[in-house]
Amino acid sequence: MSALDAFLDQLAHVLPAERILRDAGSTWAYGMDNSRVHHAPAVVVFPEDHDEVAETMRLAYAHRVPVTTRGRGTGTAGGSVPVRGGVVLVTDRMTRVLDFRPEDRLIVVQTGMINADLQRIVGEKGFFWPPDPTSNALCTIGGNLGCNAAGPHAVKYGTTRENVLGLRAVDGQGRTIKAGSQTTKGVVGHDLTRLLIGCEGTLGVITEATLKLTPLPETRRLLRAFYPDMHAASAAVSRVMAQPATPAAIEFIDGNALDLLRKNSAVEIPSSAGAMLMIEVDGDESGIDATVERVVSAARSPEADIAVAQTAEEQARLWAARKALSPTLRQVAPKKINEDVVVPVSRIPRLIETLDDIATRHAITIVSFGHAGNGNIHVNLLVDPDDPAQMAGAEQALDEVFDAVLRLDGTLSGEHGIGLVKREFVSREIPPDSLDLMRGIKAVFDPAGILNPHKKLPDRPDEALPS
Amino acid sequence: MSALDAFLDQLAHVLPAERILRDAGSTWAYGMDNSRVHHAPAVVVFPEDHDEVAETMRLAYAHRVPVTTRGRGTGTAGGSVPVRGGVVLVTDRMTRVLDFRPEDRLIVVQTGMINADLQRIVGEKGFFWPPDPTSNALCTIGGNLGCNAAGPHAVKYGTTRENVLGLRAVDGQGRTIKAGSQTTKGVVGHDLTRLLIGCEGTLGVITEATLKLTPLPETRRLLRAFYPDMHAASAAVSRVMAQPATPAAIEFIDGNALDLLRKNSAVEIPSSAGAMLMIEVDGDESGIDATVERVVSAARSPEADIAVAQTAEEQARLWAARKALSPTLRQVAPKKINEDVVVPVSRIPRLIETLDDIATRHAITIVSFGHAGNGNIHVNLLVDPDDPAQMAGAEQALDEVFDAVLRLDGTLSGEHGIGLVKREFVSREIPPDSLDLMRGIKAVFDPAGILNPHKKLPDRPDEALPS
Repeated sequence: MSALDAFLDQLAHVLPAERILRDAGSTWAYGMDNSRVHHAPAVVVFPEDHDEVAETMRLAYAHRVPVTTRGRGTGTAGGSVPVRGGVVLVTDRMTRVLDFRPEDRLIVVQTGMINADLQRIVGEKGFFWPPDPTSNALCTIGGNLGCNAAGPHAVKYGTTRENVLGLRAVDGQGRTIKAGSQTTKGVVGHDLTRLLIGCEGTLGVITEATLKLTPLPETRRLLRAFYPDMHAASAAVSRVMAQPATPAAIEFIDGNALDLLRKNSAVEIPSSAGAMLMIEVDGDESGIDATVERVVSAARSPEADIAVAQTAEEQARLWAARKALSPTLRQVAPKKINEDVVVPVSRIPRLIETLDDIATRHAITIVSFGHAGNGNIHVNLLVDPDDPAQMAGAEQALDEVFDAVLRLDGTLSGEHGIGLVKREFVSREIPPDSLDLMRGIKAVFDPAGILNPHKKLPDRPDEALPS
Repeated sequence: MSALDAFLDQLAHVLPAERILRDAGSTWAYGMDNSRVHHAPAVVVFPEDHDEVAETMRLAYAHRVPVTTRGRGTGTAGGSVPVRGGVVLVTDRMTRVLDFRPEDRLIVVQTGMINADLQRIVGEKGFFWPPDPTSNALCTIGGNLGCNAAGPHAVKYGTTRENVLGLRAVDGQGRTIKAGSQTTKGVVGHDLTRLLIGCEGTLGVITEATLKLTPLPETRRLLRAFYPDMHAASAAVSRVMAQPATPAAIEFIDGNALDLLRKNSAVEIPSSAGAMLMIEVDGDESGIDATVERVVSAARSPEADIAVAQTAEEQARLWAARKALSPTLRQVAPKKINEDVVVPVSRIPRLIETLDDIATRHAITIVSFGHAGNGNIHVNLLVDPDDPAQMAGAEQALDEVFDAVLRLDGTLSGEHGIGLVKREFVSREIPPDSLDLMRGIKAVFDPAGILNPHKKLPDRPDEALPS
């Protein structure tokens, strides 16, 4: 009997038959995420709680069957693609609220809960959970934890790792990990919470999370500011971030992306605009006008055209346009190369200059937008996969983008994660000794190497993925 | 030749003679911290930069000599006491600013810099670094990093781990660790930054830190609120934390601590007061009065006596009184047992009831004060070490305090760390499998077990410290 069959034999005692899929027709869809890379899993399982996850992992460890955890598959880096086959563990039956205590500003949920559902539940009591990726109507809390997801409001409220108090998880031997606490301070033991956040399922399966909630601001204002070009816009970002009133979001959209919006959105964009900022400010009614004033005055320059969205509809229209950019680009260029680099805010202008230069030299359209307050730029290379010369140029261009980012003391991924598709670039940023420590940690949590293999870190030569 | 002599022989090529202390008269003082536990080191070294630390650690690894890193020794848990002798590595020559970029809201410093010196440097450009323990005039950034220190402003601005972008460190083999980046987002590799923060020198020696800076608020107000007892005060804390205007600090002081202030400070305290809150609110001038109004209205109850400090002098006097509590208590009871527990904010009243009950049953005076907005209570048991019956009672009382904290989903230490003196309690909070993972991580970073041995985690039976 194969290891997989022996695993399945025993798994039948853990999960009912209707929560174990085996036929290729049903399992196919669980082999792909938004990276569009596909590998078929042998089995797909749907545990409903921590104990079922732990039992499943114990059996997987006993029989050395790989396990790839998956929420809703909105990740763009192939993090949930089961490249070794084996088991895909789907969290979407794990959606319960286990404890909700507004008085302690916390909620404990199972990690299959959708981000937007969480926001609705905590919103009723006057709170929000800051991480809100563009995919928040679809993506799970577990996916947010796995990737250390962020979104536009991280500039003021932090990323996932700053908004979690504690976790429950299962390691690569099926053992239960208790990490963190229900309190905003805690220094007992090593910080397993932050180690699991962003591990992309390679160190453990996170089953339950105690999330730190933030009170909803009393009011919000949204500014839109047009500039003649990205240089003027990114200089404005630096000025806004240099004064004390930190905006709740500063999104920026380059000239190519504005052209898309001109064709595909209801936002009115003057023909002279070569770049746009969307700046959200939040706070109390009593202070909001003064805060807007400060931010506008920092964003202002002779050639800028700045206005405050006057109605909720206008605010919603702007946000919808911003959030539609990525799917719209996908329609224009189905095989676009979507990067997620970050540089210190003051160095955005230098990155933009380099991107211009790279686009010109390689004759590739580059569309950039993103979370400027964090220096997090989504760089999209629009390529035609049927044009081998262009694809070769794109590869070279990407190489130069990464070089520029690292030269500017930036990092190669801000929130999308490494998954499968960016592994080869990791060792450009992380020196060998630090990588060695990370691999050592991996071996501690997952001695059999079955937790989402071939993800997050580059393979050692002896463990390379068969092509 | 002994291992230590061989180490010293080679060390002479790394550090000049005047930065290596060997005579017992000079090294004695480096064997103790504010826990008052003392173990003499064999050698004290004063490296001046990362490379000298790395060289020293490489030699220590080669010769298996224990290394305990030390800032200014303000820790209260024995974290920097060299219980195995060997080397004490002192960071106080490592005080340079390596890079300061207000436009990126970051500063890179060597970790021997004093917290107050840092605040002065960044304050000149309109920033602060949120962690500000009571000892901030003396303690180093490295100590803050090692303990994940916090202080009163963590309720709004987070602890050390939320205010660091990246680190440079040296592992137990003398290898350089690059952790994090210069950006506020980053998901490349595992989160070594947060793993090193709070590790108390057991996973690495942090030599350089990229600190995330926060703009200084335009203005501050300080409220003082007297209540008849701790129950009324802690109910007020819950109400304040349940509304959106998060204060910059909410400190509380119990009746016994108020008695100390009556005798030892210039603060006027009505005789009817049995508990006090100090609530700091910060923000823009334009909004501060409305914010104060909201906080006062949440803190108000029929028996409360609330006032806003009218002058900078009055504010300073209140803070000075609060900060003097710990040293004053030390004078009253030199061998006080000082704990640092945390519970979810809504459970502070239940903890306070339990502390009252424990104090009564064991006839021990318990003085409590602390950072109420985080639920972080400094519980001081005033004991006479020459009274064996009382000491036995105190031990039992402490045991009950910890039980209560864990029953309330709290944690045993919020910011002081585990060091030497709290190790035996760690396994009450952390289950064996999680502890096993932590020990696995320790072995990856420090395979020879020479980095601050016998700290942070309880010993395995085979590695127990000789008494």
